[in-house]
Amino acid sequence: MAITTGIVGAAGFAGIELTRIALRHPDLELVAVTSNELAGTPVSCEYPGFSGATDLAFTTHDDPALDACDLVFLAVPHTAALSMAPRLVDRGATVVDLSADFRLKDPAVYERWYATPHTAPDLLARTAFGLPELFPDDLARAAEAREAGKGALVACAGCYPTATSLAAAPAVRAGFVAEEGAVVVDAISGVTGAGKKATARTHFCFADENLEAYGVATHRHTPEIEQILDLKGRLVFTPHLAPAKRGLLSTVNLPLSSDAPADAASVLERYRAFYEGNPFVRVLPEGVMPKTSSVVGTNGAHIGLAVNERARVLIAVCAIDNLVKGAAGQAVQCANAVLGLPQTAGLDVVAAPV
Amino acid sequence: MAITTGIVGAAGFAGIELTRIALRHPDLELVAVTSNELAGTPVSCEYPGFSGATDLAFTTHDDPALDACDLVFLAVPHTAALSMAPRLVDRGATVVDLSADFRLKDPAVYERWYATPHTAPDLLARTAFGLPELFPDDLARAAEAREAGKGALVACAGCYPTATSLAAAPAVRAGFVAEEGAVVVDAISGVTGAGKKATARTHFCFADENLEAYGVATHRHTPEIEQILDLKGRLVFTPHLAPAKRGLLSTVNLPLSSDAPADAASVLERYRAFYEGNPFVRVLPEGVMPKTSSVVGTNGAHIGLAVNERARVLIAVCAIDNLVKGAAGQAVQCANAVLGLPQTAGLDVVAAPV
Amino acid sequence: MAITTGIVGAAGFAGIELTRIALRHPDLELVAVTSNELAGTPVSCEYPGFSGATDLAFTTHDDPALDACDLVFLAVPHTAALSMAPRLVDRGATVVDLSADFRLKDPAVYERWYATPHTAPDLLARTAFGLPELFPDDLARAAEAREAGKGALVACAGCYPTATSLAAAPAVRAGFVAEEGAVVVDAISGVTGAGKKATARTHFCFADENLEAYGVATHRHTPEIEQILDLKGRLVFTPHLAPAKRGLLSTVNLPLSSDAPADAASVLERYRAFYEGNPFVRVLPEGVMPKTSSVVGTNGAHIGLAVNERARVLIAVCAIDNLVKGAAGQAVQCANAVLGLPQTAGLDVVAAPV
Amino acid sequence: MAITTGIVGAAGFAGIELTRIALRHPDLELVAVTSNELAGTPVSCEYPGFSGATDLAFTTHDDPALDACDLVFLAVPHTAALSMAPRLVDRGATVVDLSADFRLKDPAVYERWYATPHTAPDLLARTAFGLPELFPDDLARAAEAREAGKGALVACAGCYPTATSLAAAPAVRAGFVAEEGAVVVDAISGVTGAGKKATARTHFCFADENLEAYGVATHRHTPEIEQILDLKGRLVFTPHLAPAKRGLLSTVNLPLSSDAPADAASVLERYRAFYEGNPFVRVLPEGVMPKTSSVVGTNGAHIGLAVNERARVLIAVCAIDNLVKGAAGQAVQCANAVLGLPQTAGLDVVAAPV
Repeated sequence: MAITTGIVGAAGFAGIELTRIALRHPDLELVAVTSNELAGTPVSCEYPGFSGATDLAFTTHDDPALDACDLVFLAVPHTAALSMAPRLVDRGATVVDLSADFRLKDPAVYERWYATPHTAPDLLARTAFGLPELFPDDLARAAEAREAGKGALVACAGCYPTATSLAAAPAVRAGFVAEEGAVVVDAISGVTGAGKKATARTHFCFADENLEAYGVATHRHTPEIEQILDLKGRLVFTPHLAPAKRGLLSTVNLPLSSDAPADAASVLERYRAFYEGNPFVRVLPEGVMPKTSSVVGTNGAHIGLAVNERARVLIAVCAIDNLVKGAAGQAVQCANAVLGLPQTAGLDVVAAPV
Repeated sequence: MAITTGIVGAAGFAGIELTRIALRHPDLELVAVTSNELAGTPVSCEYPGFSGATDLAFTTHDDPALDACDLVFLAVPHTAALSMAPRLVDRGATVVDLSADFRLKDPAVYERWYATPHTAPDLLARTAFGLPELFPDDLARAAEAREAGKGALVACAGCYPTATSLAAAPAVRAGFVAEEGAVVVDAISGVTGAGKKATARTHFCFADENLEAYGVATHRHTPEIEQILDLKGRLVFTPHLAPAKRGLLSTVNLPLSSDAPADAASVLERYRAFYEGNPFVRVLPEGVMPKTSSVVGTNGAHIGLAVNERARVLIAVCAIDNLVKGAAGQAVQCANAVLGLPQTAGLDVVAAPV
Repeated sequence: MAITTGIVGAAGFAGIELTRIALRHPDLELVAVTSNELAGTPVSCEYPGFSGATDLAFTTHDDPALDACDLVFLAVPHTAALSMAPRLVDRGATVVDLSADFRLKDPAVYERWYATPHTAPDLLARTAFGLPELFPDDLARAAEAREAGKGALVACAGCYPTATSLAAAPAVRAGFVAEEGAVVVDAISGVTGAGKKATARTHFCFADENLEAYGVATHRHTPEIEQILDLKGRLVFTPHLAPAKRGLLSTVNLPLSSDAPADAASVLERYRAFYEGNPFVRVLPEGVMPKTSSVVGTNGAHIGLAVNERARVLIAVCAIDNLVKGAAGQAVQCANAVLGLPQTAGLDVVAAPV
Repeated sequence: MAITTGIVGAAGFAGIELTRIALRHPDLELVAVTSNELAGTPVSCEYPGFSGATDLAFTTHDDPALDACDLVFLAVPHTAALSMAPRLVDRGATVVDLSADFRLKDPAVYERWYATPHTAPDLLARTAFGLPELFPDDLARAAEAREAGKGALVACAGCYPTATSLAAAPAVRAGFVAEEGAVVVDAISGVTGAGKKATARTHFCFADENLEAYGVATHRHTPEIEQILDLKGRLVFTPHLAPAKRGLLSTVNLPLSSDAPADAASVLERYRAFYEGNPFVRVLPEGVMPKTSSVVGTNGAHIGLAVNERARVLIAVCAIDNLVKGAAGQAVQCANAVLGLPQTAGLDVVAAPV
C-alpha cells in the first residue's frame, strides 16, 4: 500500500529533486508539495520537465494535506525545521529532515555555529542521523519507533559531510588515522549547492569560468564532519565552487597512524570490506579516481584512494551528486530504511554516460 | 630597439598565449613561431582570432630564423628543451624555458620524477629559477650573464608551483610554518592545463559538468614545490580538474609553528609587506577570497588568507591564470627582468570584468 | 518474456545511451553490446556510471550472441548498417537502425548526399521510417511483418530531422505552409551531437564559450527533412554548435499560406489536436518557448509557437535531447511499437529539474 | 591631450567593459564612473580584476564631474538616456549612447516597440547612428558638429542589429536581395546579453546546459534591424540564449534576387570589397564559418558566407562579442571617429587563442 507523502519546501533545488524521486518511487504516493513562495503554481509551470509527470501544484507550508501524510520530508532552511518537526513527530509521522536543525547532537554546538537557539533539544536524543552506510543502527531504531507508533525523525547528513565521511570513516574506524595533526578536507561543489536564489554568486556570468574557495575556516559543515568522524577540532575544511550544475568532490587528507598500512592496496581492501553489500558506495580500483560525472543524477558515491608514503598521508576522494546522495536521494534512502522498504527503492538509476 | 624573439613550440596552449603577448609587447619583435606539426600553417588559420594581428606562419623547430634571435622561448614538452637549450645559451641567447627540464636543481630528482636522464646537468648551476616575486636574485644574475655576453637560461616555474608558492612563501620564510606535519595542497585547474591534445580527458562531453582529482600522490609538480618551499617530503599535493578553460586555484594548508601569529590579520600584514611593490601579486583584505575569474587573461596572482585557530592551520589560497602567470605571462615577466625592461611590459592588461 | 536484445556500436554516445535505457527497460534483456574498438572492456570501465548496473563487456561486432537476439539496434556509422542490416532482417530479427543508411527512400538521393553507393536498395521498400508521432503506420506495418516472421527494419529519424519535423509537420499537413518560398531552419545542438571522437572541434577548450554554425548549405540532414516534410528543395538548413553536452533546439520558419490562420492561438489549437494522446510531445501554452533543459535525459519533445504577423511566418521551435528523442530514446520508442509494448516502456523518466 | 571622459551606468556589463577599455585607451582620461546602486563602492571591490588598474569608485549619476567631461558614455537602460542626453549635448559634450533611446529615427516606432513616449524627438535629426562600417557619414557629421562646438550625439547600434547588419548590408546594398519574401534571422547570444541582474533566467543552474529561444516575434531589435536594412516588415528575427558568457552569432538568411550571383565566391568577393580597409571586419574564406571564440574580448566581427543554390538563399553568418563590438567597443569606435582619433585606439587587442 502506498505511503502518503508530503514534501515541505519542494520548490528549492533539494526539494524539487526529492519531488522527482518521489514521483517515480514505487511505494510512495506524493500528495503535497509545499512552497510558500510559489503556492498555487503547478510544479510543471515552475519546472517544465515535470509536465506529464504530475498535476500537483505547490501549496503553502500549512497545507492540511500534510496532516494525513505518513511520511514528511522537510527541505526547508535551518530553523524552519525546528518549528515544524516536533508537531509532526508527535502525531506519529515519519519525518525526514534535510536541514541542519537536528544534525548536531549538542545543542550548544548548534547554537554556536548557527547563531540561533535550538528550540527542540529534547527531540535530539530521538533523532536518527541520516547517513545509512555509517549509522545503520540509528535508522533501525527509528524504524522501531515508527513501528511502535511513536513517530520518527531522521536528520539527514549534509552534502559535504556525506562525501567527506564516506571517504574517511573506514580509515578512521580501523584506527588508521593518527591521533594528532590536522585532517585537511578540500571539497568542490557544483553551483546547485549555492541554492536556487538568484544572486551575484549564482549568476551565470560570475559563476561560469570561475573557481573560488568560500566559507574558509567558517563553513557550518565543519562541526558536523567533526562529530561524525570524532575529530575534536582537528578538521580544516575548505569548500570550493566550480562551474558545474551538480556534483561534489571531497578530497580528504588523513595522517596515517604509526601502525596503519602505508600502501594503497591494503587500505583499499579494508574499504571494500567496509562497504561490502552497500548498493550505493563503490570503492574504485587502485589508481582510479572518482569523477562526479559518474554519479550525477544517482545516489551513488564513488571513492578512490592513494597513499603519499613520504608524508604518510592517506588521500581519500569521494564523488557524489550533492542534490542526490548529498540531499534528496539520501533522504529517500533513509525513508526506505525507516519504512522497511528496499534500500534502492526509487533510487535505482544509472548515471548518464555523457 | 626591438629584441628579436622566437617561440619554439608556439602552437600549444602556452606557446600561442606567449605569441599573443609577444605580438603586443612594445619591446619584442617576434620573428619565428615554430611547430613541427603545423609548419607552413599561418598562425591565423589555426587560431582565427590572430587574423589581422600577424602574418606569421608556423615553421619547424629548426627554423634558421631562431639563430638570429636574442630571445628564445621554449614551450616544448619536457626532454625537448634539454636538447635545445644548451646550443642556444652557448651562442649567447637569452633562453626562457617553460618546460620542466631545468626547474629541479638536482638532476637525480629530475630523473626519478620524469623517468628520463638529465642530459644537460652542467647547465643547471647557471639556470635562473623563473618565479620573479620569490627569486629576484636569480633573474638579476641571469641579467648579468646576459650583459656579459654569456647567454642566460631561465627555467620558469610550473603553474601549480607558482600559485602554491606565492600562497605559501611569505609564511614559510617568516618561520610561521611548523617544522613537522604534512603540508596539504589541493589545487584546481581549468582544462587548458591538460593541453591542446584532443583526448577523452579533454573531450567537452567528458570534461564538462565533471570534477575529478588526478595525479594523486604522483604529480610531477610535487618535487618542484618541495624545492621552492624546502618542504623535504612533507608535501601532499592533489591537483583537480574542473570545467573551465583557464584558471588555477591553489588551496595551501600550512600548520602554524608555535610562535606564529594565529590571527589572519597579523599574517595578512606580513604578506602585504612581503609583496609590497610587486605589480602582479595582490593580497586581498581579510575575509575576501580570490576568484580565478578576476585574474584570467592577466599575469596577476590574487591571494586570500584565513586561519583555522582550533587546528592552528593557515589556509592560503592563490588564484592565477594557468596559461599566463602559470606559463606565458611569467615567461615574459622573466624575460623582462633579464632584458632590463619594465616588469609589466607587455603584461599590462585588466581582467575581463565578466 | 524478456526480448533478447543486442546493441551494435554500443560504445558511442548514442549506443551507450541506448545501453542505459535498455538496461532499465522492463521487457528487454540486453545480452550483447558491441564495439570493435573496445572489445573486451567492461562497459563499467569505459563508463564508470554503469558500475553496479551491468557486468557486460563490449564484444566485437561479429559477436555470435547477436544471432540469438530478437531485437538488434544498430548504432554504427553510415555504410556499416548497409552491410549489417540485410542479414539480420533476413533471419527474422527486428532491426532498429540509428544510422542514415535506410532513411532516404530514394537510393540516388542517398548516393548524392553520402557520396557512397547504396548496396541494399531492395530493403528500402520494407523499411519503416522511425518517427512514431508522424509515421505510425510505418511502424504498424513493421509490427505486422515481425508477427509474420519476416523480420522488420526501422530507420530512425536523425536528430535534427526529428526536432524539425515535429515542429513543422502539423502546420505542413494542415496546409498552413505556403507553396513557395524558402523554409528556413536554424538549429542548435550540444556537443554530443559531434560524437565521441576526440577532435579539435570537441576539445573542451575550443568548444566551451564558443558558438558557431557548421555544415552550412551542405548538412546531410537536409534531404531527410525535405523528404519528411515534402519540401522539394525549399529547405535552408543551418545547424549550430553550442557549449552544452546534450540538447537540440530547432527553430523552424514556415511562410504561411494565404488561407492559414495568422494568429498563434489558432495554430496552437491545431498542434494540440495533432499531438493529442502522444505521451512524448508537449505543445506549450501561447507565449511560452521550450528549453532544452526541460527535456534533457528524456524522450520528450517540447514545442512552442509564435506568428510573425507582419511577415506572415510561423515560427515553430522544438526542443529535444539529441541523444534520446534524437537517437536512443526514439529507437526504443520504435522498438516498443514494433514489439507491441507500451510506447513509454523504458522511457518513463522525468527530466532533472536542474 | 587627454579627453576627459565619464561613463554613466558603469557598473552594468556594458558599462564595466567600457570602463575597462577606457582605462587602457591612450587618449581618454576616465574621471567619473557612475552607478546609483553602487555609489561609493570602489570599482575594484565590485570587479576585483580592476584592482591595480584604477582607484575610481562609482558615484551617482548626478556626479558633477560629468559636467566637466568632453566625452560622456551613457550605458543606462532605455528611457534614462532620453532624459540625460539633451542637457549634455546642449552644453557641447560628445555623447555616445549605448541605449535604444535614439536609435530609431521615427519616434512613433520607438513608442510602439518600447511602450513609452519619446521625450526628445528633436534630437533625433541630429543623432548619428553608431555603426561605423555602415554609416561613416553619420559619424563624420557628428565630428563636424563637435568641431563647431555644438555637441554631438551618437546612438550606438544594438548587439543583434550590429552582427545582423554587418552580415546582411553588403548583399542588401548590392541589390542581391529579392524584393519579396521574409528575411529570417536566427541569432544566438551568450548570457551577458541578459544583463547583470540576478534572475532565474541568468541563474547558472538554469542557464547552463540549456538552449532556448526568447522574444520570438517580439524582440525590440526587430525595428532597428529593419531600419538599418530597409526591410519594411519582412524581418523574422528570433534570438536564442546559449550557455556562454560572451559572444553573439547571427545567421542571416537572405533570399537572392534574380540577378544576384548564386555562387558563394562571387558574393564573397563583393563582401571583401565592401569591407576593404575596415580594421574590425573580416570576411572569411569560402567554406569557413566564424566562431564567436575568435572575436570574444575584441571589437572584431567575422563573417562567413554560403549560398543554398537550390533555394536561392544567401546564408551570411556574423560573430561578434556582444559586449564589445555589440556594445562597449563599438561605442569607443564611434567616439574615436567623432573625436578624430585612430579607429583602433584603445581597441587593438588580439583574441585569447583559447
